[in-house]
Amino acid sequence: MMISANDPMRKTWLPVESDSDFPIQNIPFGVFITKDDIITIGTRIGDYAIDLSALQMLGYFKGIELTDDVFLQDTLNDFISNGKKTWRAVRNRIAEIFDKNNDELKNNTKHRDVVIFKIEDVEMQLPVYIGDYTDFYSSKEHATNVGTMFRDPDNALFPNWLHIPIGYHGRSSTIVPSGVNVKRPVGQTLPKGATTPIFGASQRVDFELETAFITTDANLMGDSVPVDDAEEYIFGMVLLNDWSARDVQTWEYVPLGPFLAKNFASSISPWIITLDALEPFRVASPKQDPTPLPYLQQTGDKAFDIKLEVYIQPENSEDKLVAESNFKYMYWTMSQQLAHHTVNGCKVNSGDLMGSGTISGPTPDSYGSMLELTWAGSKPITMPDGSTRTFLHDYDTVTMKGYCKNDEVRIGFGEVRSTLLPATIKF
Amino acid sequence: MMISANDPMRKTWLPVESDSDFPIQNIPFGVFITKDDIITIGTRIGDYAIDLSALQMLGYFKGIELTDDVFLQDTLNDFISNGKKTWRAVRNRIAEIFDKNNDELKNNTKHRDVVIFKIEDVEMQLPVYIGDYTDFYSSKEHATNVGTMFRDPDNALFPNWLHIPIGYHGRSSTIVPSGVNVKRPVGQTLPKGATTPIFGASQRVDFELETAFITTDANLMGDSVPVDDAEEYIFGMVLLNDWSARDVQTWEYVPLGPFLAKNFASSISPWIITLDALEPFRVASPKQDPTPLPYLQQTGDKAFDIKLEVYIQPENSEDKLVAESNFKYMYWTMSQQLAHHTVNGCKVNSGDLMGSGTISGPTPDSYGSMLELTWAGSKPITMPDGSTRTFLHDYDTVTMKGYCKNDEVRIGFGEVRSTLLPATIKF
Repeated sequence: MMISANDPMRKTWLPVESDSDFPIQNIPFGVFITKDDIITIGTRIGDYAIDLSALQMLGYFKGIELTDDVFLQDTLNDFISNGKKTWRAVRNRIAEIFDKNNDELKNNTKHRDVVIFKIEDVEMQLPVYIGDYTDFYSSKEHATNVGTMFRDPDNALFPNWLHIPIGYHGRSSTIVPSGVNVKRPVGQTLPKGATTPIFGASQRVDFELETAFITTDANLMGDSVPVDDAEEYIFGMVLLNDWSARDVQTWEYVPLGPFLAKNFASSISPWIITLDALEPFRVASPKQDPTPLPYLQQTGDKAFDIKLEVYIQPENSEDKLVAESNFKYMYWTMSQQLAHHTVNGCKVNSGDLMGSGTISGPTPDSYGSMLELTWAGSKPITMPDGSTRTFLHDYDTVTMKGYCKNDEVRIGFGEVRSTLLPATIKF
Repeated sequence: MMISANDPMRKTWLPVESDSDFPIQNIPFGVFITKDDIITIGTRIGDYAIDLSALQMLGYFKGIELTDDVFLQDTLNDFISNGKKTWRAVRNRIAEIFDKNNDELKNNTKHRDVVIFKIEDVEMQLPVYIGDYTDFYSSKEHATNVGTMFRDPDNALFPNWLHIPIGYHGRSSTIVPSGVNVKRPVGQTLPKGATTPIFGASQRVDFELETAFITTDANLMGDSVPVDDAEEYIFGMVLLNDWSARDVQTWEYVPLGPFLAKNFASSISPWIITLDALEPFRVASPKQDPTPLPYLQQTGDKAFDIKLEVYIQPENSEDKLVAESNFKYMYWTMSQQLAHHTVNGCKVNSGDLMGSGTISGPTPDSYGSMLELTWAGSKPITMPDGSTRTFLHDYDTVTMKGYCKNDEVRIGFGEVRSTLLPATIKF
């Protein structure tokens, strides 16, 4: 596969810190608003946001088949619908434009002024309009931890778990980008030992460390996507904080699954990291035993080595690293998730978001939720200011980061960061 | 409340059969394509489809505040966003235009030619773009039947059921209008007594008799809708066949709810019947014991007396009426469903669809699914051609009808009708 944008030797004429998440080898896609209130599709190199609609209008994408306004939009959906060949051509061209040996834009101050912005001068938006949001439950460690805590340590996994990439539908209307704060939800909960529920603010608000992938139009209704074709339809990935109200969830979720415990908010990082950019970090996924049914049997390495971190910052205090995990721990791959999702003919569209499920690793410091890190509240975590946490407090800021790194290059996701605000709905 | 469009005495100059679902008192909203390939928003009187964008261009809505292209669209979402005052003004005006004492359009052949189409000359579309689809589970009889069959007749309802209008998120991408046929899904199932799943076409494809309501923009994220304000945000209702693969469902649904068993298809009737048109059929909902929490306590009659019918037509045979139910049996009302959905701050948008859940009545001939009608397959139903059914066969056509009727007027929903086609995905 020829992805010239991935050339680890390439340097750019833009200043980029050596530990940046966004070297010229990344070239993610996002949507931002400039100081002049123009909304556009863009990319990022170092600490610069680059306006792709301006680049296109100035003729820098000549030769690539694109509609005139494909970048002058408030979502990436249409661009994503163009398919992998176009994504790759655009990404390769961006790499060329910013290559240190290319003077075309570098020496054109007039062009640079309308194309390049400081990252702090733009406001990041949701990168896609999300028609449907699905959340999977694909970390064996997470499912085992939850099953051990709430059911039976000897039968922690349900019988279907090793056969099906279990997933459920989420709510699209409350997916927000990093920086949008989230209010503590209110709802019904059942106090321990009680038989009738009470109503009030959730006392067990949690984060869930996830990634999510964003698809292009994958199939017609009634058709399926074979597991080994699935990556053709995956545009890229983001970080996902799938906020959860554990006490609401416990009371409501039988028999149809989580609902109000989840749909008050889900936060994503604003830059979509393409699957192409992640290519150098491809690794094998965990061995699957029992062997899954044929429609889920994949060939080649379908996992990615993405380091993940979660920080909690209490109000007026500092960030504390509370979890370090890795996307490569996932038992079911994105390819298996997409193949499963469509095997019944379910239609997948451009801009659909599919969450991984909480990504927990094998050790207690790699668990992807407070529920697991504090073992259902029995092992509080001490913060830098001396306070302790079982679940999240009002004004706690949760930050998730993700990056890939080898000897040659670091490809990062940036962060998804938001603050939990007090409940305002009356109860 | 002054809804002049509801005047039961009004007659129209258009020919309308006395048992029509669409007298001039109905005035539903839908989207259709004309023979000239123009897509438009319209209404229906008798067997005539009426082009509202043409009416607007000809000046018939003068005096009502509307944007120029509000009806020249392929979805009703923008019109719905205008709110109840506008819906009501437009509906009242349409009633005036077609009143038999109004000659304005009646005597203008040129105008009539571009406004009025025979219903068989237009092709009905999905009436709204559905951002999010939620399905509730609000029939006590249905939940009791399912609990009795699969769990414990003495504890058929889960402890949360009488406190929460239980709901879950569905898939928007596979909601189709009446007339679009549906393929039998394939998937994993666990044969009786087996411990490992098999893969193949579902053997237990079922319908679910439901209605659904369509909302307007109801709240900002983080805000809630009080139960007694909820009807302000409900535009209208449709019939919903929530296709289900029972064998897939049984194996996959623990612990996160139904997924592939439901998301292969959901079919809706194409005309949205406004809540205003249903006003004369308002009735009390069943008494709730225990009294729900205060945020779910409603005042006034919030149920509607809507008769519902399900027919199955085997290939080359006739329709058989298999179930007669009524929307008024629902334990939880639409107002309670919307109040519950938003009590945690979940944002509800224009065009969102909320299904009632299967509507089963108290008697065995009023059950809203084959699962219940045949009691999990133990009591087959005989068809007009002598064949029997436990679940649906390939080429069976399922039709659902709904209507309200009193001494003065009949307000109908038309139908949602589609044929189950054989599976085409390889297995």
